[in-house]
Order: sequence, then structure tokens, then C-alpha cells
Amino acid sequence: MSQVFDVERVLAELTLEEKASLTSGSDFWHTQGVERVGVPAIMVADGPHGLRKQAEDADHLGLGNSVPATCFPTAAALGSSWDVDLLTRVGEALGRETRANDVAVLLGPGVNIKRTPLCGRNFEYVSEDPVVAGELATAIVRGIQSQGVGTSLKHYAANNQESDRMRVSAQIDERTLREIYLPAFERVVTKAQPWTVMCAYNKVNGTYASEHHELLTAILRDEWAFEGLVVSDWGAVHDRVPALAAGLDLQMPAAGPRPDEEVVAAVRDGSLDAGVLDVAARRVLQLVAKGLPAVGSDDTFDVDAHHELAREAAAAGSVLLKNEGGLLPLASTDGVVVVGEFARTPRYQGAGSSQVNPTRLDAPLDALRAAGGELPFAAGFTIAGGPAGDDDALLAEAVSVARGAGTVVVFLGLPGPDESEGYDRPRLGLPDNQVALLRAVAEVNPRVVVVLANGSAVSVTGWRDAAPAILETWLGGQAGGSAVADLLLGVRTPSGKLTETIPLRIEDTPAFGNFPGEAGVVRYGEGVLVGYRWYDTRAMDVAYPFGHGLSYTTFGYDGVTASADGTDVSVRVTVTNTGPVAGAEVVQVYVRDPEASVLRPVRELKAFRKVALEPGESQEVSFTLGARDLSYWHPGLHRWVVEGGEFVVEVGASSRDLRGSASLTVEGEPLWGDLTPMSTIEEWFAHPVGGPLLQDALVPPADMPPLDDTMQAMILQMPAKVIADFGLSGFDREVLDALVAKVRA
Amino acid sequence: MSQVFDVERVLAELTLEEKASLTSGSDFWHTQGVERVGVPAIMVADGPHGLRKQAEDADHLGLGNSVPATCFPTAAALGSSWDVDLLTRVGEALGRETRANDVAVLLGPGVNIKRTPLCGRNFEYVSEDPVVAGELATAIVRGIQSQGVGTSLKHYAANNQESDRMRVSAQIDERTLREIYLPAFERVVTKAQPWTVMCAYNKVNGTYASEHHELLTAILRDEWAFEGLVVSDWGAVHDRVPALAAGLDLQMPAAGPRPDEEVVAAVRDGSLDAGVLDVAARRVLQLVAKGLPAVGSDDTFDVDAHHELAREAAAAGSVLLKNEGGLLPLASTDGVVVVGEFARTPRYQGAGSSQVNPTRLDAPLDALRAAGGELPFAAGFTIAGGPAGDDDALLAEAVSVARGAGTVVVFLGLPGPDESEGYDRPRLGLPDNQVALLRAVAEVNPRVVVVLANGSAVSVTGWRDAAPAILETWLGGQAGGSAVADLLLGVRTPSGKLTETIPLRIEDTPAFGNFPGEAGVVRYGEGVLVGYRWYDTRAMDVAYPFGHGLSYTTFGYDGVTASADGTDVSVRVTVTNTGPVAGAEVVQVYVRDPEASVLRPVRELKAFRKVALEPGESQEVSFTLGARDLSYWHPGLHRWVVEGGEFVVEVGASSRDLRGSASLTVEGEPLWGDLTPMSTIEEWFAHPVGGPLLQDALVPPADMPPLDDTMQAMILQMPAKVIADFGLSGFDREVLDALVAKVRA
Repeated sequence: MSQVFDVERVLAELTLEEKASLTSGSDFWHTQGVERVGVPAIMVADGPHGLRKQAEDADHLGLGNSVPATCFPTAAALGSSWDVDLLTRVGEALGRETRANDVAVLLGPGVNIKRTPLCGRNFEYVSEDPVVAGELATAIVRGIQSQGVGTSLKHYAANNQESDRMRVSAQIDERTLREIYLPAFERVVTKAQPWTVMCAYNKVNGTYASEHHELLTAILRDEWAFEGLVVSDWGAVHDRVPALAAGLDLQMPAAGPRPDEEVVAAVRDGSLDAGVLDVAARRVLQLVAKGLPAVGSDDTFDVDAHHELAREAAAAGSVLLKNEGGLLPLASTDGVVVVGEFARTPRYQGAGSSQVNPTRLDAPLDALRAAGGELPFAAGFTIAGGPAGDDDALLAEAVSVARGAGTVVVFLGLPGPDESEGYDRPRLGLPDNQVALLRAVAEVNPRVVVVLANGSAVSVTGWRDAAPAILETWLGGQAGGSAVADLLLGVRTPSGKLTETIPLRIEDTPAFGNFPGEAGVVRYGEGVLVGYRWYDTRAMDVAYPFGHGLSYTTFGYDGVTASADGTDVSVRVTVTNTGPVAGAEVVQVYVRDPEASVLRPVRELKAFRKVALEPGESQEVSFTLGARDLSYWHPGLHRWVVEGGEFVVEVGASSRDLRGSASLTVEGEPLWGDLTPMSTIEEWFAHPVGGPLLQDALVPPADMPPLDDTMQAMILQMPAKVIADFGLSGFDREVLDALVAKVRA
Repeated sequence: MSQVFDVERVLAELTLEEKASLTSGSDFWHTQGVERVGVPAIMVADGPHGLRKQAEDADHLGLGNSVPATCFPTAAALGSSWDVDLLTRVGEALGRETRANDVAVLLGPGVNIKRTPLCGRNFEYVSEDPVVAGELATAIVRGIQSQGVGTSLKHYAANNQESDRMRVSAQIDERTLREIYLPAFERVVTKAQPWTVMCAYNKVNGTYASEHHELLTAILRDEWAFEGLVVSDWGAVHDRVPALAAGLDLQMPAAGPRPDEEVVAAVRDGSLDAGVLDVAARRVLQLVAKGLPAVGSDDTFDVDAHHELAREAAAAGSVLLKNEGGLLPLASTDGVVVVGEFARTPRYQGAGSSQVNPTRLDAPLDALRAAGGELPFAAGFTIAGGPAGDDDALLAEAVSVARGAGTVVVFLGLPGPDESEGYDRPRLGLPDNQVALLRAVAEVNPRVVVVLANGSAVSVTGWRDAAPAILETWLGGQAGGSAVADLLLGVRTPSGKLTETIPLRIEDTPAFGNFPGEAGVVRYGEGVLVGYRWYDTRAMDVAYPFGHGLSYTTFGYDGVTASADGTDVSVRVTVTNTGPVAGAEVVQVYVRDPEASVLRPVRELKAFRKVALEPGESQEVSFTLGARDLSYWHPGLHRWVVEGGEFVVEVGASSRDLRGSASLTVEGEPLWGDLTPMSTIEEWFAHPVGGPLLQDALVPPADMPPLDDTMQAMILQMPAKVIADFGLSGFDREVLDALVAKVRA
């Protein structure tokens, strides 16, 4: 076990060159040690949903073979559980595996907002909503870090697509950045202090995230009080010196020799403050010191227990989208037939840096057969889409297996290459051969259950009418196969909810037309209207709304109340399991601000709680919202504001299944800015000091005819300066300038 | 008559102070004269659809009473005629009235694109499409200027809303500006050389249009070769010196004494080039010299003939949206009853600076009665929406009039204060009292014809099922009343087409969520997807599509062909009047580019022609498209490019009533830019020189496992520099830098 060292003593002993070398990796996965002073290197490794510690013989791009580790459900599936306790336990397990492998930092979780379902890496992210993403990632970070190893909250910020991700500039207005793309990071940083934050590849408003002082220092450090280290995404640094100056601490992977020399030269010639380098080197030393105990431990982990946890999580993260006629759960496996290659060859994780080498792998078909004997099976299609003749034969075989069966469980999903880090999805829909199979099967047997495996929303348009029941399992990790068997057979009750809207068509999605961008720029033209904020505010039809998910039982909501004490709002609701079996409900609290001086989404999630209830059991659930939950980021005042007036608190089972609401009035804060000559007459009149002054100054000449409503409305929107320039008698620039001076005094 | 002077001689004689004074007005409507050297002032006056020459006793804001002039249909109505010849004749008439009133420049037409139906000033603008706006405004300018008076093409640029218009910054990306918001100006400038262009109030990407060098000089002068004068919108200049430097020539209205002194001081201290002031002063002198003959003329105009022309134009600009069962034309006035206050109190123009004092005014009710005797009439509602009791009584009366009638013609529309310069519309729909009236009438009599009067699209959702026939007359000018009688009775056949989409709901419109902006900024988040480009590309339902309009006859389209000669495309189609009466059809030519490296609208109008045909008559119509019609503005190369490949030419009667198409292949131009270390592997491989070089340099190490498809796809999107930084053996930054140098050499 390496000896933990005294960071300040070591720092004081280091040469400039050694400090510079510390701020870059020594190879793909290790920090740089300084043997002379006894500072060892520590290892970091990929993995939001499992450890990907690269084996020695892996390829040269940092991907490929890795040591076996539990492949937990991907973030898309974990997130759909909406279960803080469960995610904490998954985090603890991830931490144990990290520690057992002598890795100091696990590179996750990812909390980028799902701006478009086509983002190839959505399976690694939690939600289209920042509260859900932030709250659940906080649980994961707490769990992992409770084991004495670190996390890396990524990818900071606005890395919402894979297309051209290493160059593209995300063009985002300040309010949207603050309300949509930053809050999940903010929540995790302020609540869980991840050991590291990973900066993104992309540019934000023209500046590389790795060189973005506002993001890395002004916001992350000064506003959120982040105490850890900022590491670059692998290859995200293009110029070390401005990156260090902006607040980056550690470049990964290793740099060639020149960049270290550039840093040294910059300090020598004064273009980089030596103090900045000290801060970065200190943070690297602190990270190494913090990570050493875990690296040196001889802990192991319980492979079986972690597999069971992965199974629990996969079940909890599956979403029952549809269940007409109570087709699920299956009463037994009698008469059940299984169709679809994915039952035999499960899709359970995505491609890229998060790809785990699982300790074992449960296929749904095996799990169902283990529960119920030799169920008939037909592949139905090839995942890659073989020659038409092959697929035709597979389809015909499946139809004959399905004909006359009691229930047909059809496993569909996206082919692996559709979802990967590094590029975006080619389409929203399932492959044609799978849809053709489903329709053919449904024609001979209406009792069809579709089980979906995909890492991000797929279109159900064109086929959902053929399936009375649909279970979305996302990419459920290595135990997803047994979890789905548990759910189908009613051993477990579905309790997952959508963290992303399932749209009807790609043309309906918020980023359509503004994705993936052109000539190196992607305009976030939809602004704050992302996910359900878009669909609900534009009142569009969707296939399945945000927050939706069925159970084998039902829940009643009673007595929704909300009361305000200043800007603190207490919300209460009583939830009752009104159905026949135990189950869990995710109670969702939305806030709407019916009138505001900016466009606000029609509703925004502000809190949620997952509640497990026995049949007939009731529980009162209470929430406390604060000023921030009522506020918006004021783009003119550059801060959060609560605009006074009516607010409506809505409580429900999805963004479109609201079970109760309460209205309340909250006193806001004054929003007027400084008055200037270019302030409008309306703004002057709204100002407590300026209004009366202008009223006195603006005396219309005696011979002027009275203004009609139209003219008055027009004048209200005119800047005072333009009125003065028009030469209304007695009101000119000098009078106006005097008024401005008076108001300021 | 004032003597025309020698501009250069005068300019040479002027003092610096005199030059400065020339670049601002002398009062609200006149240029500054220089008595000492015999330069008189000339007068300019408002009016895209009629002269608004202010009377002496008007108010102090430049609005209010004006001398009588023919109120032609507003631009919304004129544009809906799609009739170049007609608009030229209207322009000639406008020019005659301008000249007869000793006014030198008529301040119009307006070609701002209708970005949202809620823009309060849309009635003054032509279309949501730049080809339609540009082509029709060209005709108006040619007509007016043929009379020896000038025009002012306005409001340049991106003045697409009234909310906060004097301060708001329109945030528009380069491609959208070039493809949507500038081309109508470009077309008019290059084809008709308006005497003046009026700069807008608003900012464009942070800079006031009045100080926008790129707009006023780089684009307008250097690219489009504009020869005339740039005048400010009234009150749009906030700082004369940068405005002059940017390319503004004339500030209106009068400035106080200080700004002239500021200009003089700026020249004296060298902060403003004396040459810049000379250019502006010369342009003012040239404008005065050009305008003097008209100002001095003793021409008159034929009030009756102009009224008749206004009537012809109002009929041509009305759009028959719906005509189920051939309810229109009315066989006679027997059994016809008239309902709706607008039949008696017509809305025929909008509020603000364009408001004309008409020479006479035809009310629809009078015109119908003149044709058919004392038709029964009931007001049905109050325009302003009176107390509920009043409206209830009016509704009851109208229902009793309608019951048992042969046909009920219901006149509906927007109240006047809904549509004005200076503020935006409060809603998309008709007032509730009008909808209630219509539904009540339709309940007792299904033979309902709705006649609409409004300056911009209104929602028909919630009531169109109650009206088998709908005639949209826009704001039809002083003869609109008799024109509508002509159309209803079949004296004329409708031939207008929509120049703006009628959406189903405000939530469907492209700018929803990005209008009217926040904190002084309005983000054009929908980019190039404006109007039908939005609805068609997103495949959304609309109430009535762009280009739609019915006739009392029908038209067949045959033999659509398209052939390319380089980038010149010849399009031919034969159109036949297949119905019972004479009529005119607007043949529309759209281009689609099925595959491109930027997102292109699914179709874009490139040409149109209005063709009058007798029953049974056929005509071959041919069009020639050029490179520009196939191109898009490349945001990386900053120029128009034709991307080679397939293009589809669609010919039809609306954007959603396509009657034929032809596909052709056009050779494009090479689009690769310079290769840099940050160019992706894909970009390197696509480059004719760089591709082979990189292929040779990127030799994978012998021990590296072959890459699967996923990995290959990921690598293609990586910049070469990142691959080099990852340290693939034999390919490092030095090798890459050498490759870049080689490609450049």
C-alpha cells in the first residue's frame, strides 16, 4: 500500500517542471507520479454503469477489452427507476468494484440533458429533465464515493450530441444554459462534491469547454464551491496554457513532451500565473492522496450479490408503457412463446467508453425457460438485417410459432451499432424487419407483448396498435434478462417511469431542424423548451409523456395542498395503492407560473418521490420547494428571480396525468432595472421613482388631439429617448437626461 | 418649379457644417435645404399602400390627419394577388398621387418576412416567402418610380416584430439572414434600384441596423450595388457618427442642433472620415435633384380611375379558402342576408404610419345592396366587444335574420386595435363574440359564407366547420367593399393565393417560444424554417397551406418537365382551365434538394406565374431557374454554393397541392475547405489531396485488433489531431503537421 503523503509539503518541494507534468496524465489511464518526492500515480477508469478497466492487451484508442466487472443497467435504465435509495446502493457496488480493482476514480456519472433522442450517447445519460438527472446522479456519486473512491461528473457542459462533438460549438443563450443544461451539474456538485468533474469536448458559445473560464471557474468554483479537480475528457485539451488558466487541472490522457514545456515556458514568461499552476498541481496531488488508500486495498467484491443488485435495478428501471386488458403479468408460462433475436442475444449496454466486460450475462430466453420450462422460440429477424430472404424465412417461422399460442412475447430493439459514443443515431424508429415481424405476428395472434431494448426513445408510431402490452427495458445491464422475466411473470411489479418523452415522430422533437448543426455550430434554437417542456408548452401529442409508467397495481392521489411561507412552499398529497398487488409509485411535483415576463415552460418538475405501498396502504407524501423552484434565470439581471404572482403546483403520475393541483400567490422581488434614456415609456411608468417624474414631465401640448388606444399602446413601447428626439414640446433630451440623473440619485 | 442643380458643383461649395446638416431632416417630413447655394428641401411621405401626406394641423408624433389619397389594398392583400402586372399598375397610380402632391419619395414598400402571424405590422408586408415578397415589391417599386418619384424599401433588415422594435436585437445566424431575411431586399435592389432603402429600428445580432456596416455597406453597396440613399426609420438613429460611418446617409426626422455639431466635430478630430460625410451629403443632393421635377409638377390624378384600380386589386388579392358544394358564387342576391358589423363598418387598412385618409370608402353592405336591392342586415356583434348583454341581443337579432334565409354572408375580422404598427397582435384568433355569432347563425342556417377582414393570418380552428365557404379579403383598401361584392356575386372570379400559411394554432407557428424575445434579444431559433418551410419540413398539419387559393373554375396541370444545362434549369408545364368560367391560376415552382450537408427546407418556392385562362384554354408556362435557385448559403464558406446531386422540381397550385415533379442531377462544386489538424478523419478522406496522404500515414500497428464498424464510425468523426494526441504509433503531431503542410503546398 502506497503511503499517503502530505500534499503541501510535496508541493513545496516540486520543481516547476514537475508541477507542469502533474497536470497531465502519464498514459491513457494514469496520473503522472513524481518518484523523486514519493508521489505515485493513480489509475482512473471508465464507467458510469460498471468499471471498464482496460486490460493490458487492449487497442491504442483506449477502448476494447477490459477486466470483468458487473455491468449494471445503463443510466437510461437506472434513471427510469427514479429511486434514490436504489441508485445509492448501485453506486456503493460500483465503488466496491472500483476499489477492488485498485482504481481510484470511476469516470461517471453523466448528466448531460437528452436534448434529442438521436444523441448516440443518451443511454449514458439520465434524463431530459435537470432535476431528475441531478437528483439521481447525486445518489450514484454518494454511493460510489462512500467506498473511498472518486467519481467524475461528466461531460461539463452542453455535450448533448456526438456529431462533431470534438469541435462543435453549442450556441446556447444564458437563460437556457442556466435553467436546462447546468442545473444537473450544479445539484450534484453542491450536494455530493464529486471528486472530479470532467470537462466536455465541445465548445460552448465558441469556446472549448476545456478553456471555458466562466464554466470552469466563475460558475463551478465561485458559484457552486466545487472543491475537487477538473479533468479533461480524453483528448479535449487543445492548448494546455489557456486551459489551465480557465480552470482545468488535469489533462488526459498523456501529453507528448512539448505541452509540458509549453506550460513551463508560459510560467517563465509570465503569460501563465505560477499560482494557477500551483492550484492545479495541488488538486492533482490532493486527488492522488485521496485515492491512494483505495488503490492500496486488497478488497474484493461479491460477484453474485452485485449481479442480484443489477437484476433489481434492471427491473426497477423498466417502464411498462402500455398494458391493455391486463395482458401482463403473465399468469404462467403456459402457452407463452418467445419471438425475437434479442431474447437470445440480449442488448444490454451501448458502445464506446462505457462498454463493460460483464461478469456474466442473463438472456431473457434463458431466464424465462428457467422459470417455465422449454418455451418455444423463434428468432424472427436478424439484428443486423440480413438478406431479405433470410429475414423472410425467420419471419415465417415466427408467425408459425405465434399462431395459436396463448401469448407471444416479442423482443425488439435497436441494433447495437445504432447507439454508440462517437456518433449519433441514424433514425428514431426500429428497423423495418422488426416492425414487419411484429405486424405479421400480431396478425395471427393479437395477444402480443413487446419487450423493447434500446438506450434512448424509439418511435412506436406505426406499430404500437399491434401490441396490447409494451415493456421498455432500455439497456438493462447483465442481469436485464432475468429482470425482464421477473417483470413478465409478476415476480416483480413494474415501477419505472419515463425520464424522457417518447415522441410520435422525429419531426416533433425540439431539436429537429437545429440538430446536429452546420459548419461547426449547433444552435439550441428551442431554448428552454427541451423535452416535456417543449411538448407540453406547444400542446403537442406525444406517444408517451415524460413521467409515464404503468404498474400491475393502481394508485390514487388525494388531498393535494400547497401553502407558501414567503418563497418556501409546502406540498402535501396522500397516495394510496388502490389495486391488488404491492407496487411503487413515483409522485411528481410540477410548478407552473401562469404569467411571467419571460416565456416559461407550461410546467416544470421540481420534486419527486418514489413510494412503495402494499395493497390498500396510504401514505402522506410531503415536499418542500424553495425560491429556486419558483424562479427563472433573468437574462437581463443575470440572476435567479422569483417573479411575484400566482403559481400553480401540480401533482401527478406523469406530466400529462396530473391528479391534483393547488394555486398560491407568492410575493416576488422588484424586477425593474436601471432607467436609461432608452427605457420605454412603459418601463418608466412601472418604475416607482421614474414613473411619477416622467408623468410630470410629459405634458402634451394644449393643441394636441387626445391619443386613441392604438396610439397610446404604440407610445408605451417607445423608448423615452425617441419621444424626446421627436421633439414633443417641453420634453427634449436635456429634460430626459435630467430625469435619468434624478432617478439615479 | 425648383431648378435642378449640379450636384458636384454644389457639393464642392458646401461647408463642413452644411454637409453635416444635409444628412439629417429639417423637420418630420423634409430634407434639409441649403438656401445659400440654392438647394431646396424635398418632402417624403408615408405609405406602402397609399400616400399619407400629413396635414398641417396633425399631431406631434408624425401620425394623424393626412390629405385624401387612394387607399389601395394593404400589402397583405396586394401580395395575395401574385400579379406582377397588377402591382406595377398600382405602383404607377401610387406614383401619380405622390407626384400630384409634390412629394418626392413614397416611403414603401415593406418586404420584411412574416416570421410570425402575430407581428402587428404584417399587413404592411408581402409574404412569409422571400421570392414572393421580392418579386412583387419589385413590381411596385418599378411602377412608382416610373412616375419620376422615389420609393423607400423598408425596413432593412430583420424588423419582424413590433414588440420592443426600437431596441430588440434580432439574433440570426448568417445562413438564415442570407436565405430568408435578406433576399427580398436583394431582389428589389438589384432588379429595381429603389431611390432609397430605409434602415430598421432594431438591432441585428447586437448592432443597431442604423449602425450596421455589414448590412448598410458590405452587403447593400458592395454586394448588391445599391446606388440610392439609405434613410433611417424615423427615430432609428441613436448616434449619427457611427451611423454615417456604417453607411447611413440621411437621418430622419430632424435632429436637434447638437448631433450636427457632433458630426462636424468627428470630422474635425479625425474620428469620422471626411470622405464618408461627402458621400452621404452627395447622396442626399442626388436624391433632392432627382426628386425636384416631380415636386415642381402640377400633375393631378384621376380619383375615379384609381378607385377602380383599388377595386380590381382588392378582388385579385382576396383568397377563396374554402367553397364546399360550390356555395359561391351566389347565383343572385335573392334570399341572401348579410350579417356582421364589418359589412357596414369595413376594416380596410391597419393602424400606424401607413394609415391613409381615403378619397372614398365602399362598405360591403352598400355594394351588395347596390347590386341586389335592400338585403336584410344584422350587425351581430360589436367590433370592440360591448357589454355581454348588447352582444347577446345583436346575436339574437342576427340569428333571427339568418333563419330561413337562402344564404347568410357573415362578415368577420379583427378589431382595428388588434393590428397596428408599434405593437404586436394579442392573439391569433377572432374575438369570442364573433365566433359565438357564427356558430349561432350556422346552427339555424348551414348555408354560411364567411368573409374575413384581417391583415394577417387568423386562426380558423374552432369555427371553420361552421362555414362551407370562406373568403379571406385581408385589409382590402377603400374599394374592398365593392370588390367583395364582385367576388361573391361572380362578377369577378377569385384568383388570390395565400402568401402566408394559415396555421391551426399559435403553438404550431415557427417562432412560438422565440417570440417576442426576452431581455432585449429575440432568438430566431427556427433558423431557415420560416412559414411553409417550417410546416412542410416538420410535416405538420395546417389549416390552409402557403400558395393555396380556390377559384370558381378549376385548372389542370400536365407535362411537367425539367432539364438542366449546367446549373440552368428549364421547367415547363401546361396549364388548362378545366372549369366553366374564365379564371387565373398562380403556377408555383418549388425546388427540393433531397440530400445536402446542411438541413434544407423540404421545398422552397423559386418562381411563380399568374396565368389567365378562358374556359378550356391551355397555356404552356416555362421558367428558367439559375444556380442561385439551387443553392444554399454555406455557413462555413460564407457564400452561395450548389451542392451537386439530385434536385427535384415540383410544380403545383400550393405548397401542398403539387401537380407534377421532375428530378434532375446537377453537378455541384467542391465543398471541402482547408484541411487543418482539427479536420476530422472523414474530412481528410474526402479531400482529393489529403485523403491519400492520410491513408498512407495512418498505418495501424501490427498488434492492433481490427476495428469493428462502430469503432470505425467513431474514428471517422474524430479530428486528426486527437488521433495524433492519443499516440497511435507512427502518427503523432509532427507527422500530422507535415501532412497539413504538404496539402497546403
